[in-house]
Amino acid sequence: MDSLEVERTTTGWAARDPSGILSPYTYNLRSTGLEDVCIKVLYCGLCHTDIHQVENDLGMSNYPMVPGHEVIGEVVEVGSDVTKYKVGDVVGIGLLVGCCRNCLPCKSDVEQYCNKKIWSYNDVYTDGKPTQGGFADEMVVDQKFVVKMPNGLAPEQAAPLLCAGVTVYSPLNHFGLKQSGLRGGVLGLGGVGHMGVKIAKAMGHHVTVISSSEKKKVEALEHLGADEYLVSSDETKMQEAADSFDYIIDTVPAVHPLEPYLSLLKLDGKLILMGVINAPLQFVSPMVMLGRKTITGSFVGSMKEIEEMLEFCKEKGLSSEIEVIKMDYINKAFERLAKNDVRYRFVVDVAGSKLDQSKTEE
Amino acid sequence: MDSLEVERTTTGWAARDPSGILSPYTYNLRSTGLEDVCIKVLYCGLCHTDIHQVENDLGMSNYPMVPGHEVIGEVVEVGSDVTKYKVGDVVGIGLLVGCCRNCLPCKSDVEQYCNKKIWSYNDVYTDGKPTQGGFADEMVVDQKFVVKMPNGLAPEQAAPLLCAGVTVYSPLNHFGLKQSGLRGGVLGLGGVGHMGVKIAKAMGHHVTVISSSEKKKVEALEHLGADEYLVSSDETKMQEAADSFDYIIDTVPAVHPLEPYLSLLKLDGKLILMGVINAPLQFVSPMVMLGRKTITGSFVGSMKEIEEMLEFCKEKGLSSEIEVIKMDYINKAFERLAKNDVRYRFVVDVAGSKLDQSKTEE
Repeated sequence: MDSLEVERTTTGWAARDPSGILSPYTYNLRSTGLEDVCIKVLYCGLCHTDIHQVENDLGMSNYPMVPGHEVIGEVVEVGSDVTKYKVGDVVGIGLLVGCCRNCLPCKSDVEQYCNKKIWSYNDVYTDGKPTQGGFADEMVVDQKFVVKMPNGLAPEQAAPLLCAGVTVYSPLNHFGLKQSGLRGGVLGLGGVGHMGVKIAKAMGHHVTVISSSEKKKVEALEHLGADEYLVSSDETKMQEAADSFDYIIDTVPAVHPLEPYLSLLKLDGKLILMGVINAPLQFVSPMVMLGRKTITGSFVGSMKEIEEMLEFCKEKGLSSEIEVIKMDYINKAFERLAKNDVRYRFVVDVAGSKLDQSKTEE
Repeated sequence: MDSLEVERTTTGWAARDPSGILSPYTYNLRSTGLEDVCIKVLYCGLCHTDIHQVENDLGMSNYPMVPGHEVIGEVVEVGSDVTKYKVGDVVGIGLLVGCCRNCLPCKSDVEQYCNKKIWSYNDVYTDGKPTQGGFADEMVVDQKFVVKMPNGLAPEQAAPLLCAGVTVYSPLNHFGLKQSGLRGGVLGLGGVGHMGVKIAKAMGHHVTVISSSEKKKVEALEHLGADEYLVSSDETKMQEAADSFDYIIDTVPAVHPLEPYLSLLKLDGKLILMGVINAPLQFVSPMVMLGRKTITGSFVGSMKEIEEMLEFCKEKGLSSEIEVIKMDYINKAFERLAKNDVRYRFVVDVAGSKLDQSKTEE
């Protein structure tokens, strides 16, 4: 028995019930297996999905739950079969930590679509124990689900790339929408939407932010560098823009009509849904038939795409826009995020926070 | 002034009001222009769209209206700039007779998506006069919208290929779904659906007919050659078939839930809508996101695809299943078609019918 087989305890911040309030929680980490990487968490981003999870909006939450799936950390231990990473490397971990490796999606290197994928928290690992996320001192993760951070990306700004960044990069990559000169729309200007504007601009697209009000016009055009700003209630402008978009990235996480946006798409244009909305969305069939338009969706991205996307961001000098907070601000941050009151992502400075300040053993 | 500039009268069967009842109607045909082909109609198929049009279901009908857009005819006169066709050729005419020739769809040879396309009837031609369809002695059509029938296709069986046939061929062609070995589903077994089974089988696909009842099982499996028959209310079988289809051709022309069919699709699978349904269809976003599935639609096919499809059908020895009728049965045929009481397409033997039997001048 060597050190790899010793379980260790770590402290994270967990929700205990659907109030979603996080507080310190100490739990065991599995020992670092042959293919595992143990990391000390440096930064972790806060995503809308985390709200759904801690508040049990999808009815599938188990407590205590340590959320967090945009994790940047430093490798502190590696299993003996790990060759890609060494102690001291700065790495990232996203939404997933496991998959079956045998199904069509796994064999096609799009393991995010594996039906047996394991989520980085609020899931059960292969050892039967709950997975816990990145608002914690440490994580142990299979090397397949670890990505090396390229030099030159600031770690705190890189955190949101692991979910929000790849969520927009992946469909643009998969649906053949990477070449310059395309006309894209971004619907919803939150964590994912603002990365949509940045990544699409970096690809050389003409980018229009589409919004229900004038409110975000200045920040969209001047701060994020969008080319145009379209208010969806302005019928004249919407009509002028009809049949002109190659794609629209739809990040709105609530029910909304699809027809106005379908009508903006040109022949073969794609409406790409990224918001998990459990209430039904509606459309009439001629809106897709007459123009061979597509309604599709995409779910984060593969490990391969995360690597590609990080390289892309490094090359283009891209980063996210964030507000760095300490862990003891997390509950306030959840509140503000629920009201979309953040530009555009909270990132917790986990290593710079004292996690066990009011330690509770369970 | 030569003979090409002389207008001629012809007799067709027209609806006069939203009752949709057809009766003989004599009207002027434009003189055969430089690029026009004048044909004597031999056969014309009867499609669900014709019901919508004669009964003003879409609120855009003008009367008198001579329907019919699956037309097989013999060339009787050609304009002096027509080189592709000569008197005596057997040709086909489909849903469209004009387009702008300058827009993105026109320049991409998918003129069926041109916003200024001209329908073969219930539309206005470039000369300002109404277009009239194929339930008539003669038609004058621009050569661009005429297709030569390959030798070896029986003309009456070829008629439904011009709409129903290309409607299924075009999306399989466009969406990269032509290679053998794919698993396809066909939802709805009418004129379009039965061609879906035949064309998909001829492409070497494993074809499942999906239906709400057992009623069409024998004909689907034994008569049309489908590989499987799936009853959508059989939850066990539906669950067994989950994640197994590359595509589903959805020909149902009425509101229906999409989730059961989306769940049958595998990663990147496509639900292709072909039924014009003006009431909204619904789905929840995770059903497309988790599997990167696509809801799309397709509208007939281009002239180029009609040519390809006819060659394909000739090569594969494919034809439609039809019930040939005379023109004086057309009103009864409309009634039966509305109840889906036909296997699978009515085709009117126009040349073999006496159209002016109770001639009405207007």
